[in-house]
Amino acid sequence: IESKLPNVGITIFTKMSKMAQDYGAINLSQGFPDFDVAPELIDRVHYYMKKGMNQYPPMAGVASLRTAIADKVQRCYDVTIKDTEVLVTCGAIEAIFNSIGALVHSGDEVIIMNPAYDAYEVIINLQGAKAVGVNLRPEDYSIDWEAVEQSVTAKTRMIIINSPHNPSGAILTEDDLIALEKITEGTEILVLSDEVYEHIVFDGQEHHSVLRSEKLRKRSVATFSFGKTFHATGWRLGCLVAPESLMAEIVKIHQYNTFTIHAPSQYAVADYLAIPDNYLSISSMYQQKRDFFLEALKDSKFKAIQSNGTYFQLLDYSQINDKPDIEMAEWLTKEVGVAAIPTSVFYQSGEDRNVLRFCFAKNETTLKAAAEKLKDL
Amino acid sequence: IESKLPNVGITIFTKMSKMAQDYGAINLSQGFPDFDVAPELIDRVHYYMKKGMNQYPPMAGVASLRTAIADKVQRCYDVTIKDTEVLVTCGAIEAIFNSIGALVHSGDEVIIMNPAYDAYEVIINLQGAKAVGVNLRPEDYSIDWEAVEQSVTAKTRMIIINSPHNPSGAILTEDDLIALEKITEGTEILVLSDEVYEHIVFDGQEHHSVLRSEKLRKRSVATFSFGKTFHATGWRLGCLVAPESLMAEIVKIHQYNTFTIHAPSQYAVADYLAIPDNYLSISSMYQQKRDFFLEALKDSKFKAIQSNGTYFQLLDYSQINDKPDIEMAEWLTKEVGVAAIPTSVFYQSGEDRNVLRFCFAKNETTLKAAAEKLKDL
Ligand SMILES: CSCCC(=O)C(=O)O
Ligand SMILES: CSCCC(=O)C(=O)O
Repeated sequence: IESKLPNVGITIFTKMSKMAQDYGAINLSQGFPDFDVAPELIDRVHYYMKKGMNQYPPMAGVASLRTAIADKVQRCYDVTIKDTEVLVTCGAIEAIFNSIGALVHSGDEVIIMNPAYDAYEVIINLQGAKAVGVNLRPEDYSIDWEAVEQSVTAKTRMIIINSPHNPSGAILTEDDLIALEKITEGTEILVLSDEVYEHIVFDGQEHHSVLRSEKLRKRSVATFSFGKTFHATGWRLGCLVAPESLMAEIVKIHQYNTFTIHAPSQYAVADYLAIPDNYLSISSMYQQKRDFFLEALKDSKFKAIQSNGTYFQLLDYSQINDKPDIEMAEWLTKEVGVAAIPTSVFYQSGEDRNVLRFCFAKNETTLKAAAEKLKDL
Repeated sequence: IESKLPNVGITIFTKMSKMAQDYGAINLSQGFPDFDVAPELIDRVHYYMKKGMNQYPPMAGVASLRTAIADKVQRCYDVTIKDTEVLVTCGAIEAIFNSIGALVHSGDEVIIMNPAYDAYEVIINLQGAKAVGVNLRPEDYSIDWEAVEQSVTAKTRMIIINSPHNPSGAILTEDDLIALEKITEGTEILVLSDEVYEHIVFDGQEHHSVLRSEKLRKRSVATFSFGKTFHATGWRLGCLVAPESLMAEIVKIHQYNTFTIHAPSQYAVADYLAIPDNYLSISSMYQQKRDFFLEALKDSKFKAIQSNGTYFQLLDYSQINDKPDIEMAEWLTKEVGVAAIPTSVFYQSGEDRNVLRFCFAKNETTLKAAAEKLKDL
């Protein structure tokens, strides 16, 4: 078998979660909560199953959910979009896969910011295209727009941004969007904006969705995740928002890839979105968890890097040892009993800053138990 | 926007289902039942949601489901497969998408049998590869293996078979598998076997899964659908079986495409598969529907083409008029009140045999009402 992706192995998330399980470690690696979906949302899914909503829903998603998403976009980002600009997908990952699959051609270049979510480069390469990396600033993981501008060539088809940013927790500001507007203005460059942590932003800051910018919106696909927002990562429910010209191409992939998404969950989430507090309340919930985790680690040798969003916390362990981060993550899992994600895997160069990513979407007892194991290293 | 798929529009299934809805026609077009999932299966999904199985399941599928699928393969096809040869997917369509996506390279040729399910060619073209069509025999939709053999070139990467066959209802025999063994022996040609209607085979005949052939199994991906088998097309749950060498490539796509599938349904279907009658009983249930529908049409001018499996019945309308079949399907939907699928869309050449496909996965009242409208044409 000749491989199309000879350098691709099993993802770091699968690897570390399995290692956590094999060694009985507390799993702060893969990004998912250890608390549950709201019972009323579960019962709503049951209600729609019993009501018989079990056959193919429309290819692009059920009408009530597409409307509810458009309403949420209006409320959160103060912009009016049409239902036909919304596509429901199998997690945000299918949204990303379909968008790159539909819009990026063989020979194209796509600019990504390192550290980058591992999926982007693989999906880009699958199209016969090249991921051109620009490193985020080491001190605060902000985007160096001059470096981005210098990386633009005639082959640049797309720029991928991700805010709140996985793994760093950095968030984009209004100035970032203005910089991106300037770089793309007058070009045909598209933007893919991965916003799966849109509702997890801390310390009173705002999420700057690409949808807020009229100029960017015309050339952008924004991707979102109900799994992340409603603590239901196993339900595989995400969506994307794109102008109709881009949507027309994206649905061509979607309809032959997954065709359509789990129907009863779509109806249930549509209802659940009608109560804005169901998503507006999660920033403060996660901020408390971040603060709790950091407080429990405050006398440790780990150095925390500011997390402004997502449910991830970067910790610099260079005061403890100088193991390569993959080795450190394995050692922590096997010997200390806490699993985390090494961040070098998010760099195309494999750059190792002695920084690990910890997921704090966990109950306080879990976070406390993990901190107990980490704090005396 | 430069399109990667300039000739692809919205699928015929979406188009005809929408037209049926718009005109209030009885919808015998898109393949889905108008009866429901078993209440005990629905309650099982609810049970697992309440039990908290709502976070990422393992990438390849939950252990209990992969084991249950391997057990079913053992029982039905008398072959022992490992759990690691099973991948759970977002409907069989994601299984097909990932398999072609992982295994077919740019410049390859893939042999498909016309009429062919519309997805194959689009997915093949997306890889920069070419679908080489071989027409099924007009009289009984059987495969002309000599024609297949003559279509094999040095570029042939894969042969796609589909039994029970959509749209015709033809089924492969043991001799067909032997012919395919001979053609592929000593070559590197892979086989994709779309077997989503594996449990719907009529008149005491057997489904000849590619998994029954030791020689073919080593080079084959077989795809299956719980949506089709358990009347839950909206749950998006399918799977594929492939040897580990092929699986290693296929999961590289899956993990960056959908990553993993709706967890609670996986646990529930695993339990439901433990009772073989839940799937073994559906052939006779659908055979009764086929017979009921044909009986109700027996004095009509439609000529039935033998359906040996699937929940589709082809009807030749050449005694009624000689409209092109797309026009006939639209006229039937708008003027007569019954929606069906034109079969010319399944031919690369657009070949029109004045034949429409009717889905009989419906309650007898629905089938009777449709036949009433059709029988006096
Ligand atoms: C798809 S598994 C990874 C989950 C996640 O988003 C993360 O851990 O970064
Ligand atoms: C994916 S919608 C089509 C359903 C189906 O398999 C068919 O009607 O042939």
